[in-house]
Amino acid sequence: MSAHSVFTAYLLAAVSLPAGAQNQTLAQRLGYPADAKLLIIHADDLAVAHAQDMASFEALNRGAVSSASLMVPCPWLTEVADYAKAHPEADLGLHLTLTSEWKTYKWGPVAPRDQVASLLDPHGYLFADAGEAVRNIKPEEAEREVRAQVETALKMGIRPTHLDSHMAVLFDKPALMAVLVNVAHEYHLPFLVLKIPGVPPDMYAALKPTDVILDHVFMAAPPIKPDDWLDYYTHILKTLPPGVSELIVHLAYDDAEMQAVTIDHPDYGSAWRQRDFNVVTSAEFRKALEENNITLVTWRELGRLLPGL
Amino acid sequence: MSAHSVFTAYLLAAVSLPAGAQNQTLAQRLGYPADAKLLIIHADDLAVAHAQDMASFEALNRGAVSSASLMVPCPWLTEVADYAKAHPEADLGLHLTLTSEWKTYKWGPVAPRDQVASLLDPHGYLFADAGEAVRNIKPEEAEREVRAQVETALKMGIRPTHLDSHMAVLFDKPALMAVLVNVAHEYHLPFLVLKIPGVPPDMYAALKPTDVILDHVFMAAPPIKPDDWLDYYTHILKTLPPGVSELIVHLAYDDAEMQAVTIDHPDYGSAWRQRDFNVVTSAEFRKALEENNITLVTWRELGRLLPGL
Repeated sequence: MSAHSVFTAYLLAAVSLPAGAQNQTLAQRLGYPADAKLLIIHADDLAVAHAQDMASFEALNRGAVSSASLMVPCPWLTEVADYAKAHPEADLGLHLTLTSEWKTYKWGPVAPRDQVASLLDPHGYLFADAGEAVRNIKPEEAEREVRAQVETALKMGIRPTHLDSHMAVLFDKPALMAVLVNVAHEYHLPFLVLKIPGVPPDMYAALKPTDVILDHVFMAAPPIKPDDWLDYYTHILKTLPPGVSELIVHLAYDDAEMQAVTIDHPDYGSAWRQRDFNVVTSAEFRKALEENNITLVTWRELGRLLPGL
Repeated sequence: MSAHSVFTAYLLAAVSLPAGAQNQTLAQRLGYPADAKLLIIHADDLAVAHAQDMASFEALNRGAVSSASLMVPCPWLTEVADYAKAHPEADLGLHLTLTSEWKTYKWGPVAPRDQVASLLDPHGYLFADAGEAVRNIKPEEAEREVRAQVETALKMGIRPTHLDSHMAVLFDKPALMAVLVNVAHEYHLPFLVLKIPGVPPDMYAALKPTDVILDHVFMAAPPIKPDDWLDYYTHILKTLPPGVSELIVHLAYDDAEMQAVTIDHPDYGSAWRQRDFNVVTSAEFRKALEENNITLVTWRELGRLLPGL
């Protein structure tokens, strides 16, 4: 499994862990009927750009998304920290970031560069390519950087509700997955883990029976044509299976800044992110949520299911 | 002398060093008559934001400014490096950066954070305030960071024509001035030094007789009202003394990104930078240059006066 194949998968289907000791579905543990359709609508990539922050804050404020995650090494982190402090109810996690993927706009690590040398390209930025990152990163240096990102967020006044992984780098091999899982355990945070059918079990060796595992994850990917955007998303809502799912979106305003950030990269580019924003804030999308009896939930609710401190 | 007083000085008047061994004025050494009025129109702060880069590139391309300097720790450095490689004739220096002054948008050092700890605020960013930077920075760590910025620029394919100092931090005390001067000597680059009348001579102890010192430096500062912008700049041109002067401007488009970068800071803010762009690209400003017999020059020309390698 490469990061690329995960990242660009049209539909990221996941399978439930056996309910194990709990003997209840995740939906039931949250207080819903076993067949409830629960959905986290999740905005990725906060702090990457002002246009991303503004669109994502607007969607959070309007309840168009129920959760989001932010990139600590990016320069607009302070803008997101200000939002987090003004909106303590907002469900904000950390989009742990080990790549710097754009062409003209780059960032480095949070940890001292000489302590995370395996994460860096020749110019001292994080690698642009997820595959290159996965091949080069030493897991102990990934853990150092991930811890530094968590600690930086805490120092900035952000109290994250969950952890996930930018460009799926930490989902790509067992030693990196273990970094995500171990740090999440240490900070008592729930985390996104993609349970892909057929993946060898050592990928999930660090998981504990008490971990909360989503039932399904969905994310738009390049084969979708711009004209089919609303159809793609409403199709997901119409066919959403029972259980707890996450729908990952990328929200930004298609302006000069965002066009420059995402230059030469239409996939997940500026117009793409504007389309995502337009859909999740549309009356049609809202109506599809209602008609299909979908209840929005948050990572904070999932975090309450974890063993106490 | 505080960094603040230097940075906000309405007019930064400088005095010539004695011509010394050269026995010629700087203008004469450049091949002009002794009474020629030579001017570097210099755009500061490239790489800080996309809107800054676009406005500055436009002004460079139109010959509205003759020189510019860029901030290596900022995320848009790659955009500037691409421009530099596409425009090898462009007169681009390094705006050595030891502060991160905006509220919602921040950057850290280029050197490993643990090697430049005295440069950093509690969140690991460069200090916002120039005075705080000057008080806290250990000169040996400033030198480490300055060297890392020069080396990073070179690795990115930028061949700087000169060095100067963002927010005048390196001009603020002798030990920091010595960092600028020593690194400039090592890389055989000319550098901006503000020779302020009345400053004790130890500030300039690192200078060599062969160094190129500008005769005058001008920069707009907060007392100027928006309606007086063109008048301020044309007044400088009308009264420009003979010799080699630099006029420092800050060019950006007043858009959503730049408004967010400079939020809550109208001085040198987004509208300010748009006004600077509007003036230097205006027909009136161009006419004032011609009517006052002002010749634009570059730091590259000044660098050719330095002793050879």
